[in-house]
Amino acid sequence: MRTIKSLLITVSLLSGLSSASAAENPLSKSDLGAANSLRERALSDTTPWQLVESLTTEVGARPAGSAGDKAAIQWALREMKRLGFSNVRSMEVTVPHWIRGEAECAVLAPWPLNIPTLVLGGSVGTDPAGIEAEAVMVKDIAALAALPAGSVKDKIVYFSNRMDRTRDGSGYGRGVVVRAQGPSAAAALGARAVVIRSVGTSSNRFPHTGALRYQANIPRIAGFAISNPDADALERQFASGKPVRLRLRSSARELPPELSANVIGEIPGTDRANEIVILGAHLDSWDPGVGAIDDGAGVAIMMGAAKLIGGLDTKPRRTIRVVLFANEEFGTSGSRTYTTAAQAESVRHVLGFEADFGAGPVWRLSSRVNPAQLPVIDQIYRSLAPLKLQRGGNAATGGADLDGLARAGMAILSPDLDGTKYFDVHHTANDTLAQVEPAALQQAVAAYAVSAWLGAQYSGEWQAVTEVKPPRR
Amino acid sequence: MRTIKSLLITVSLLSGLSSASAAENPLSKSDLGAANSLRERALSDTTPWQLVESLTTEVGARPAGSAGDKAAIQWALREMKRLGFSNVRSMEVTVPHWIRGEAECAVLAPWPLNIPTLVLGGSVGTDPAGIEAEAVMVKDIAALAALPAGSVKDKIVYFSNRMDRTRDGSGYGRGVVVRAQGPSAAAALGARAVVIRSVGTSSNRFPHTGALRYQANIPRIAGFAISNPDADALERQFASGKPVRLRLRSSARELPPELSANVIGEIPGTDRANEIVILGAHLDSWDPGVGAIDDGAGVAIMMGAAKLIGGLDTKPRRTIRVVLFANEEFGTSGSRTYTTAAQAESVRHVLGFEADFGAGPVWRLSSRVNPAQLPVIDQIYRSLAPLKLQRGGNAATGGADLDGLARAGMAILSPDLDGTKYFDVHHTANDTLAQVEPAALQQAVAAYAVSAWLGAQYSGEWQAVTEVKPPRR
Repeated sequence: MRTIKSLLITVSLLSGLSSASAAENPLSKSDLGAANSLRERALSDTTPWQLVESLTTEVGARPAGSAGDKAAIQWALREMKRLGFSNVRSMEVTVPHWIRGEAECAVLAPWPLNIPTLVLGGSVGTDPAGIEAEAVMVKDIAALAALPAGSVKDKIVYFSNRMDRTRDGSGYGRGVVVRAQGPSAAAALGARAVVIRSVGTSSNRFPHTGALRYQANIPRIAGFAISNPDADALERQFASGKPVRLRLRSSARELPPELSANVIGEIPGTDRANEIVILGAHLDSWDPGVGAIDDGAGVAIMMGAAKLIGGLDTKPRRTIRVVLFANEEFGTSGSRTYTTAAQAESVRHVLGFEADFGAGPVWRLSSRVNPAQLPVIDQIYRSLAPLKLQRGGNAATGGADLDGLARAGMAILSPDLDGTKYFDVHHTANDTLAQVEPAALQQAVAAYAVSAWLGAQYSGEWQAVTEVKPPRR
Repeated sequence: MRTIKSLLITVSLLSGLSSASAAENPLSKSDLGAANSLRERALSDTTPWQLVESLTTEVGARPAGSAGDKAAIQWALREMKRLGFSNVRSMEVTVPHWIRGEAECAVLAPWPLNIPTLVLGGSVGTDPAGIEAEAVMVKDIAALAALPAGSVKDKIVYFSNRMDRTRDGSGYGRGVVVRAQGPSAAAALGARAVVIRSVGTSSNRFPHTGALRYQANIPRIAGFAISNPDADALERQFASGKPVRLRLRSSARELPPELSANVIGEIPGTDRANEIVILGAHLDSWDPGVGAIDDGAGVAIMMGAAKLIGGLDTKPRRTIRVVLFANEEFGTSGSRTYTTAAQAESVRHVLGFEADFGAGPVWRLSSRVNPAQLPVIDQIYRSLAPLKLQRGGNAATGGADLDGLARAGMAILSPDLDGTKYFDVHHTANDTLAQVEPAALQQAVAAYAVSAWLGAQYSGEWQAVTEVKPPRR
């Protein structure tokens, strides 16, 4: 009896395991085997490095509307075809065409100091003669609002807020408010211009640009950023207690909008070809650097991952679609155009990946999927084990370019790129190929390729997600 | 017998030890005790930090002949008096007055790229319209000389040589040849301008300036430096095999010489007051940064060390003289003026220290003394034990400002500053206070203060040294 009872219990346990296994292993053995192969190939593939090298060398800076922006589109079409992608095409996007021009920032008193500066993206210029005025230092917009009436009238407002270094980029989300809203907040109180401490973490002397957002019906005043070491130096001048006078000059200006394009290429699916697994990155960059980490690396990761998937013996069930978005930096008009067009397509975007946070490594796997499908994510996570990732939560936000699709319910799978040092370089003149570490880039490609492949092979349906948080910008 | 014999042997041994001890311990117990006190005080003294902060904030950039140079002299006189130095004075020095102006470097073909650039110190400017020409890449002057005749006629020569990262700065000595001699070497072959890979180790996008030396009777052409990442980018363009065209422009120009000054202050000696232990650093800086590590830190180390020695209960036997030299960067006219004046003085310079290699820490104690006096150096080294230094050799070169005195036979004691990261920042716009690490600066002050104090107290005579190597520049 005891033996038989044991056997029965054993059978029952095995049966339970088998059933659990079916629920927890929604990916076939052969798909998992292919995932292992993808991961190993990615770790020695030099294609992504060659892509970011080629993009930064042959195109370089590619701000929305510029000649570089147009050259980048041709580059992407050519490279996607060369890599064997299908349905390679461009999708016209209207983009702003803002010209940075020259900028100067100098402390005149108490002690003269020339400060390297960048105007914020979209800033108006100053009079050609520049602006000279006393500066008032405040930490942030709340501190500005708390000043006595008239405190900043005809003055220059300096925002001293310092962003925190974090791995997940959360410090940027908190820090960027001053950049986006500071100029209009100060202009509403009669200020003549704004200078901000860069929304960046570097202690090197690189000012950090990025878009401001003018509020309607408030005069537009120029916004400048200075590096952390110069912000420290300026604050030492304020600390003297003597009046601080600045001179600012900018020849920034807005030209008529230009045409740009999203560039799209696919690894076609088979039995579920009308379900799209989208791999998004952005083709535009800021102008002071050459956009290696923002977002040449993302472009390379996505093209590299799709190329590896296309090279497998088994074709993916769902269609892998790489979308290189126009104009992420200056209002995401590429993303908005794409999202609108997607609604008219006969295909359905079921799962999204975005790479817009540097050149790796990936340190965590997060998601934003219907909770019923978390076992699928667990299974993908196990396939990534040799990459030593942490397991993240289910509140991923994707990125700015997938925001529209995510709000419409598309599931997000997020191999989280390590942002600890990202804001040392991001949006500065120092965003060059020297900041890309080949091994980290390969590890990131491995994480994206495996996740995208298994996402494309999942035997169930990717269900819509209803609760969405706003993206990190 | 045995007992007596043992005793005799013991006495003899003790006597031998005692005699060895006299030769190897040429410093008194109380002087060594004061050295321990100096070392501990230095490790918590904030005066040097305050000095480099004040110099870089209230004066900032101070290139030879500029308004900043003149402000630095007033700053140094004021601060030396405030610290209680004696015989505080300035010594007039004639210095060149070169103006950097604006500079532009751009690749026109095969792929457009704007490259941040600095002209080399002393460079002539270009025509206001700039220069456009094909560029020829060579590694160094030997490679230039090996080109077929006419290869660089009417072209721009690009020198690709990359300096090595070293702790002792030897990579700079080897790398700097191209900067100093490259422009005349290329001009002699008919080139129109020179671009060099910066003589620096940073992978950040900071070009590195520093003086060139035009050869007589050769046309003067402009010399430009570009950062390492831009040099890499330019070399990728050359690697395409397509002709590389550059555009260069500079408004650099030479104005009539100006008056500057060495600034001198002392902690007066007692029974050997007419023997000088000189602590040298330089007050001038390059213009793109604010001269925090080159050489604000050296100024702070020397003033801080002398202040601590002046604060001891026992006054030094020899005179501690701090000399802040004018114009180290642009031909060392401050040093040459000082060396000439020293020959007319009734005092004798017996031992020299120079701090012109960053903000610490000190990693090694080297010297250049008469070999008979190495036991004194050993003793000083033992007093520095808690600072964890290595023991260097007896072939130290001092630095550029002590070169004349060293050639005249003055002994050199060199607490060697760690140069591993020095050339990441040196001569760039990034030479700011953010690059100074307070604890490393304090450790360096401790090493200099103890060494200078014990050097001033040595019971014997500092003997002249005959064999001299050229200084590191």
